Amino acid sequence: MIRTHDAGSLRASDAGTTVTLAGWVARRRDHGGVIFVDLRDTSGVVQVVFREEDAHALRNEFCVKVTGEVTARPAGNENPDLATGAVEVVASELVVLSEAAPLPLPVDDAVTASDDLRLKYRYLDLRRSGPASALKLRSRANQIAREVLHARDFVEIETPTLTRSTPEGARDFLVPVRLQPGTWYALPQSPQLFKQLLMVSGLERYYQIARCYRDEDFRADRQPEFTQLDIEMSFVTQDDVIELGEQIVSKLWGELAGVTVPTPIRRITWHDAMNRYGSDKPDLRYGLELTELTDYLRGTEFRVFAGAIDAGGYVGAVVMPGGASQTRKELDGWQDWAKARGARGLAYVVLDESTGEARGPVAKNLSAAHLAGLGDAVGAKPGDAIFFAAANHRREAQELLGAARIEIAKRTNLIDESAWAFCWVVDAPMFERTDEGGWTAVHHPFTSPNAEWMDNFEDAPDRALAYAYDIVCNGNEIGGGSVRIHRGSVQSRVFDLLGISPEEAQDKFGFLLEAFKYGPPPHAGIAIGWDRTCMLLAGADSIREVIAFPKTRGGFDPLTGAPTPITAQQRLEAGIDAKPKPTAGLPGTDGVALPVEHSN
Amino acid sequence: MIRTHDAGSLRASDAGTTVTLAGWVARRRDHGGVIFVDLRDTSGVVQVVFREEDAHALRNEFCVKVTGEVTARPAGNENPDLATGAVEVVASELVVLSEAAPLPLPVDDAVTASDDLRLKYRYLDLRRSGPASALKLRSRANQIAREVLHARDFVEIETPTLTRSTPEGARDFLVPVRLQPGTWYALPQSPQLFKQLLMVSGLERYYQIARCYRDEDFRADRQPEFTQLDIEMSFVTQDDVIELGEQIVSKLWGELAGVTVPTPIRRITWHDAMNRYGSDKPDLRYGLELTELTDYLRGTEFRVFAGAIDAGGYVGAVVMPGGASQTRKELDGWQDWAKARGARGLAYVVLDESTGEARGPVAKNLSAAHLAGLGDAVGAKPGDAIFFAAANHRREAQELLGAARIEIAKRTNLIDESAWAFCWVVDAPMFERTDEGGWTAVHHPFTSPNAEWMDNFEDAPDRALAYAYDIVCNGNEIGGGSVRIHRGSVQSRVFDLLGISPEEAQDKFGFLLEAFKYGPPPHAGIAIGWDRTCMLLAGADSIREVIAFPKTRGGFDPLTGAPTPITAQQRLEAGIDAKPKPTAGLPGTDGVALPVEHSN
Repeated sequence: MIRTHDAGSLRASDAGTTVTLAGWVARRRDHGGVIFVDLRDTSGVVQVVFREEDAHALRNEFCVKVTGEVTARPAGNENPDLATGAVEVVASELVVLSEAAPLPLPVDDAVTASDDLRLKYRYLDLRRSGPASALKLRSRANQIAREVLHARDFVEIETPTLTRSTPEGARDFLVPVRLQPGTWYALPQSPQLFKQLLMVSGLERYYQIARCYRDEDFRADRQPEFTQLDIEMSFVTQDDVIELGEQIVSKLWGELAGVTVPTPIRRITWHDAMNRYGSDKPDLRYGLELTELTDYLRGTEFRVFAGAIDAGGYVGAVVMPGGASQTRKELDGWQDWAKARGARGLAYVVLDESTGEARGPVAKNLSAAHLAGLGDAVGAKPGDAIFFAAANHRREAQELLGAARIEIAKRTNLIDESAWAFCWVVDAPMFERTDEGGWTAVHHPFTSPNAEWMDNFEDAPDRALAYAYDIVCNGNEIGGGSVRIHRGSVQSRVFDLLGISPEEAQDKFGFLLEAFKYGPPPHAGIAIGWDRTCMLLAGADSIREVIAFPKTRGGFDPLTGAPTPITAQQRLEAGIDAKPKPTAGLPGTDGVALPVEHSN
Repeated sequence: MIRTHDAGSLRASDAGTTVTLAGWVARRRDHGGVIFVDLRDTSGVVQVVFREEDAHALRNEFCVKVTGEVTARPAGNENPDLATGAVEVVASELVVLSEAAPLPLPVDDAVTASDDLRLKYRYLDLRRSGPASALKLRSRANQIAREVLHARDFVEIETPTLTRSTPEGARDFLVPVRLQPGTWYALPQSPQLFKQLLMVSGLERYYQIARCYRDEDFRADRQPEFTQLDIEMSFVTQDDVIELGEQIVSKLWGELAGVTVPTPIRRITWHDAMNRYGSDKPDLRYGLELTELTDYLRGTEFRVFAGAIDAGGYVGAVVMPGGASQTRKELDGWQDWAKARGARGLAYVVLDESTGEARGPVAKNLSAAHLAGLGDAVGAKPGDAIFFAAANHRREAQELLGAARIEIAKRTNLIDESAWAFCWVVDAPMFERTDEGGWTAVHHPFTSPNAEWMDNFEDAPDRALAYAYDIVCNGNEIGGGSVRIHRGSVQSRVFDLLGISPEEAQDKFGFLLEAFKYGPPPHAGIAIGWDRTCMLLAGADSIREVIAFPKTRGGFDPLTGAPTPITAQQRLEAGIDAKPKPTAGLPGTDGVALPVEHSN
């Protein structure tokens, strides 16, 4: 080591010790003949005092080696805000290891800079304590999760990232294969297929902090490559996976956020979550539950509500405490907000603060009786606003109310930013209707029905429930998984319901079905979205903060300039334009769709 | 959990306990009314005794759940070869969790099968104890390495795998970018660039068990994706990295191979390794050192030797103990062996076992004086064979002798297969001649000259030495690294010598050079080839044995059938045939070649 001590480690007890430090010039102050330098390394900062002229040449972010004696600071000059604030190092020798040009991005936590600038000079951005500590936290999170898993005899296994393209589902990133021109690998959307094969192989307990890839249109806070803590277990029930997930979460939050997560974590069924919070990832840091009004408003002459009720749909409401004091412009703003989400609008009434009388456009359309009982029906007080949603499809209206609920909480400062509210959302539906009137799997076609529906999911596919579970933190889905189907007879029934013929199943899922012929064990798993989990733990507001070199929108990397055009030579060599040779086809390996589990 | 106990955990002390086990039928034996089943799970095997008829239906690899009572085996029926051999479980209840079709690959360690069959049914292959334990060992190796690194405050950081294509060097795998049609990502050959940027960012100690990608022609035991333990440190010297590498290696071998690796591990210079062993990764489990004969044979009239000597080249020899007893056919076989390696042949003399007289084709061409002293010159005794190589280029002849040395060791059973011989090969040359008469970097152009050559490598580029080090185990390079150049002036001199103009440097290495303007610290690193390291630890003879789902030659996956043709729709969507938009170009990010460090 070039240094003898870490700068941030020096204390009063080190006084009198000669030390050699190495790090960066964080700040330089000239005081006549004396120059003070804050020397920073990854351990922290210490003040160095130079009496020699050569320190005049130092500029911010020069990389230096300094030898000197640790000395107690003169009385009154201590800095209690600094861990090393009781001492300073009186320099006797200075070596400039490298110089720094004028900085495009100041290395200063207090300076805000655009994301593009921060990412283009990410190596300077990461010299700031905030960004650096986010990466250190992530490293520690990896370690904590692995400690839990190794203590339970999990085996860490790497699965391939150059694998088979899937003919349907989300888009794969593709990779041309030079040695087999005309053929392509795909980058995996998750190790789902391989972890299930590992269970068939009897390894029983698998995990991997796995890089995954999804080529989708960039939404805020998505990355083309992302990471999940991927887990699969054999001979377990849903409760076993949930218990493991809880231990990981409680250790992470306990050690990294200093929070005790009470376990068992509350469970809420998917239907309850939708009914009460209008979301399958409810934020439980605040109440504001939805109220269904379908029965209450039955018989109304208000066309919007009556139409939904008559169609067997749903009418519901959510209350905005104190919302009656909003200006007309603010109330109109909600209509724009709803339209931006694709809704036609957001019906409302406000209850007069003094009289409790219902006002607003919807009030005119409701009967006196409906208006009289409305406050009690939805739990609103005088001075509140009541927002309504109605739709033929219950979920559509509930999701609008759920989004309104979140927006209300934000606008009324109902969110305790220091709170952590976890829940498991369980008993998810197995199937949902396709536009063509058939059925599609909500999760993936290998998700097991729960015990209650195992023998009869065909009787009411719309009501059949799966052993599928998501873990939610403050309204963020941070992980999800399911028990998998391991019995061929159940799998065939699911395929039948989904309208997948045996031939089509073979074509799509051939080698997984082949593997399942040979004594597959009951198994279940979970994937925890690692970027988002670390983001929450770091208190960051974007997953970019916990990724060393993230990409911006459209998958662009401001640092390296990737992606780039390729040369004609590269194109030729990679065989990008080669025609594939006709293949004889491998039994059981034709056209496999990978079931996918992820939570990014 | 479906089970109460692990099958392999049952002991005599468990007798009387009612247990529920879950696992696979490893073997079934009918003895009249009694059926014995070896039940296997990931913990081991236990014998289960069925007296009920339903066990008749069991076949190999059925997945079952069994409840029964642990009982001491009848006296004389104990199986001392089995950890559970003192007991058996008398079954009271049997549930078949899933059935198994007739097996294409028997789950039996004793059965050999072709690689293609094993990999197509890898999930059955991995039910065998050998393959499964190799993956478990690898998981444990990850854990051990991480323990060492976390104890030293290393930060585990994930670097991007969708990154920038390099205009030269080994071939990149390419990925078309749908959102920026006509542009491509490249999969990284190593995280080299990013780990150096992390040092510039002041993180000081980075590691990652990193997936890397190299699109090269398949040689034996290569995979298109491979894994390295990737490490970089700031403010360190070569000795610090070597010491860290030694601690990792000694912990791995200590815990996983039960071997004490004496540290410090012996160091040998690159030139010594070539001179003495004809290899830059010498196998030190045996002697058989080469002898240089250039001076000894000076003046010979034998044209082959004289030509090399006169050209300033090299003549040398390696001794095959007892090699005089080889038949003429065996001796001729060496010529074929040499030709298969691209040499013209392998000159030899044999020393008669009783008289010590030199015989063989070369003997006729050498003078009596040269023949008389030859045995002493090369350390050969009567009964030995002496193989010669001569070439104008020292390295070419030495490498032939080095290969002969290995072959001799194999044929004469000189290799102690239980031995572990480690060494560091240090002081590698910085430069070598290009065919065009210029210079090229042996490692990469960011490798630092050592202290002796820092100021004068231009004076004798052929002799200049780098701070570059490889760690070698039993003739396998398992890791390698270097101190990097961090000073701009040194970097410029290296570029000058390599004939890289400032403009070209900017074009090729732009953003790395840009980063190096801002106070880069002295830094150094290493990459340990993780597949090969785990292979050695597992005592396997192929890296495939320590990869869950390896590919075969040409990058084919017999299990999934990857790679495959893609559909026209996929091709269109991915933007594979889109023309790139003309770009304005980003300063400092045009055409960057990634320096690469790996040891796969």
